[in-house]
Amino acid sequence: MTPPTGATASRAAPAPIEYADASPEVRAIYDDIMATRKTDWINNFWKYLAHDPQNLRRIWSDLKEVMGPGALDPLTKELLYVAVSITNGCRYCIASHGANAWTKGMSAAQYGELLGIVGLANQTNRLAVALDVPVDDRFR
Amino acid sequence: MTPPTGATASRAAPAPIEYADASPEVRAIYDDIMATRKTDWINNFWKYLAHDPQNLRRIWSDLKEVMGPGALDPLTKELLYVAVSITNGCRYCIASHGANAWTKGMSAAQYGELLGIVGLANQTNRLAVALDVPVDDRFR
Amino acid sequence: MTPPTGATASRAAPAPIEYADASPEVRAIYDDIMATRKTDWINNFWKYLAHDPQNLRRIWSDLKEVMGPGALDPLTKELLYVAVSITNGCRYCIASHGANAWTKGMSAAQYGELLGIVGLANQTNRLAVALDVPVDDRFR
Amino acid sequence: MTPPTGATASRAAPAPIEYADASPEVRAIYDDIMATRKTDWINNFWKYLAHDPQNLRRIWSDLKEVMGPGALDPLTKELLYVAVSITNGCRYCIASHGANAWTKGMSAAQYGELLGIVGLANQTNRLAVALDVPVDDRFR
Amino acid sequence: MTPPTGATASRAAPAPIEYADASPEVRAIYDDIMATRKTDWINNFWKYLAHDPQNLRRIWSDLKEVMGPGALDPLTKELLYVAVSITNGCRYCIASHGANAWTKGMSAAQYGELLGIVGLANQTNRLAVALDVPVDDRFR
Amino acid sequence: MTPPTGATASRAAPAPIEYADASPEVRAIYDDIMATRKTDWINNFWKYLAHDPQNLRRIWSDLKEVMGPGALDPLTKELLYVAVSITNGCRYCIASHGANAWTKGMSAAQYGELLGIVGLANQTNRLAVALDVPVDDRFR
Repeated sequence: MTPPTGATASRAAPAPIEYADASPEVRAIYDDIMATRKTDWINNFWKYLAHDPQNLRRIWSDLKEVMGPGALDPLTKELLYVAVSITNGCRYCIASHGANAWTKGMSAAQYGELLGIVGLANQTNRLAVALDVPVDDRFR
Repeated sequence: MTPPTGATASRAAPAPIEYADASPEVRAIYDDIMATRKTDWINNFWKYLAHDPQNLRRIWSDLKEVMGPGALDPLTKELLYVAVSITNGCRYCIASHGANAWTKGMSAAQYGELLGIVGLANQTNRLAVALDVPVDDRFR
Repeated sequence: MTPPTGATASRAAPAPIEYADASPEVRAIYDDIMATRKTDWINNFWKYLAHDPQNLRRIWSDLKEVMGPGALDPLTKELLYVAVSITNGCRYCIASHGANAWTKGMSAAQYGELLGIVGLANQTNRLAVALDVPVDDRFR
Repeated sequence: MTPPTGATASRAAPAPIEYADASPEVRAIYDDIMATRKTDWINNFWKYLAHDPQNLRRIWSDLKEVMGPGALDPLTKELLYVAVSITNGCRYCIASHGANAWTKGMSAAQYGELLGIVGLANQTNRLAVALDVPVDDRFR
Repeated sequence: MTPPTGATASRAAPAPIEYADASPEVRAIYDDIMATRKTDWINNFWKYLAHDPQNLRRIWSDLKEVMGPGALDPLTKELLYVAVSITNGCRYCIASHGANAWTKGMSAAQYGELLGIVGLANQTNRLAVALDVPVDDRFR
Repeated sequence: MTPPTGATASRAAPAPIEYADASPEVRAIYDDIMATRKTDWINNFWKYLAHDPQNLRRIWSDLKEVMGPGALDPLTKELLYVAVSITNGCRYCIASHGANAWTKGMSAAQYGELLGIVGLANQTNRLAVALDVPVDDRFR
């Protein structure tokens, strides 16, 4: 993070750290991000997170593991990420993981259905809580 | 809730309405739920929602359409429902749609990955907001 | 939804669908919205939702039923909508349903009290959870 | 919580403080709660909050002002409180303010409509965010 | 919002109320804010809240008491405020209380750790709910 | 959840995995948890998370790093964890990290102030969003 410069102690959100300005530690993580993703650019999330190299390293390590190859296919993983991000109202995350989903083959019809499910679940989640519905024995 | 005592009809939430006690209007919806799902029972959510038949009819109609056959496979739809429900902390919805997911073939490995993604997204959603990360041009 | 154009697979949020460019299916819903509301324009929410006509039709049908004439007066319904939207942090919804509330006669004093209640409830909701307060028998 | 054992005074949350065991400072607030509400009992929220008399006094003072007579009628105020509490998933608050609403004349039909609105708003709040819908000029 | 045109007094939210345009009642609170904080300016939150003097007075009174001298040091109080604000996604609150934290001596390392904790807690909060983990006896 | 009956291995959430029943992989992590914390027991969170060893390992690794020695003192770290957990309504997390905070020296007065701040921030977070307050230049 960039602490206040001079006398005006105020900056709470800093600027992105570009590759050229990055420390060797940060640059090594940027390199791994690009190599893992087979791309030549770094998206803003990492550049802003890089003010704390420990956070950058840990979060990237987590994401690399969680979103890597596994039992769920890559597109389904992105759809889940988008669904959570919509529910939490994270504009950046909806945009970035939405873009990932399009890249991985999401169709317009699939996106429309995802929106329908996210909207519906947010509705019934509240109703189930409001009505204090007990979990059915068959679901236990 | 403490509704006016003695006025059973005015109780909006407290007890489930069983099939035997349901009005013809509610019973018709219960019948459609069982026919659509090819089961012989109604889970608690609908029995508690049935105190307001209009809500029961509308929400069931929505769910039938949204969770019905489409561009996303049935298991993926349930996974998305579970991911949203976890994020919102709806115990009933996690249990019911989790059960649906198991029934539709979710493996333990897939569930483990879903948990990993939901946890990670909840983490990065907050970090992206905290850092006020601007959406990259490439994501627009 | 607007799927990726050409090689840059990225657009996660598309553009509004204007009446002139809408399909007959979408246009029919737009017509119903304007007729029901006795206005000659469509607000952005529907124009963005229209990329998936099924979502457009279902959500409009839900809203028409839920916000239509009933046991709660129209202004109270809008106030409730605004209170939920503030709690969820939906800027668009606060603006649109807030505008509806003003149109339906909300006074500045009423809006001030709504803000007071929403703020207070968000405060006590957290305190009740933090203290794990058991529900009093008299409230059951 | 596991506070230092034996140090009752240092327990911040675990048990309700009954009137008979309350300090004069807390008892005075309990008296004001009962006098204001014209009842002879104190609900659990205040008894758990009373471990910190300053919080008890401040929150009660806020609630007394916000929920007191004003431009919105008493029932509408309770409905708004319930709507927010459902959205936040506060079981205690739904029960207590729901009971208040029944006492103040809420009908089953009104409660059914409130549930419909809260569910719908939670749905459209997410969709508006997902679609990044810009606020219409007419709403500004 | 689109309040009744021409009725400036009924506008509840749209513009800040500057000191020069404030009523004596509002001006007195502004004076107390500046005196308490030993500054010569009022930040936007209060200027927007001032459309409802009762809310302005009550919220300021609450904040003055809660954030005033006590058992937690001033910086820790601001850190807690920022952590909650990030979790709720309040951009304004993150910026204002983040600025306060820098002013009160928060280091870049401390802010990095705060971000790490907030992200992690948001992650494990969801996992604990998803897994329906019962509270250990030792924690009761 | 109702996993395929008889297939214990496929159950992802339902029961805790005790040390005696744990795989060598899981047991090694349990050992590290106990060694790091200098205790002889494992709390439920890890025992439920252990159904997916990869999640167990990653989340523990994250927590060990984030909550380990750093620029913020151990008690402040727990206070921040509790504040976020209250805001998210995670009963288990409030109890477990609350217990940690008591163990690390939190006083009843400090806990009372934490509750006050969390409640207040949840209140003002909503108000700032409702009023759409622009960030002051001095806070940028």
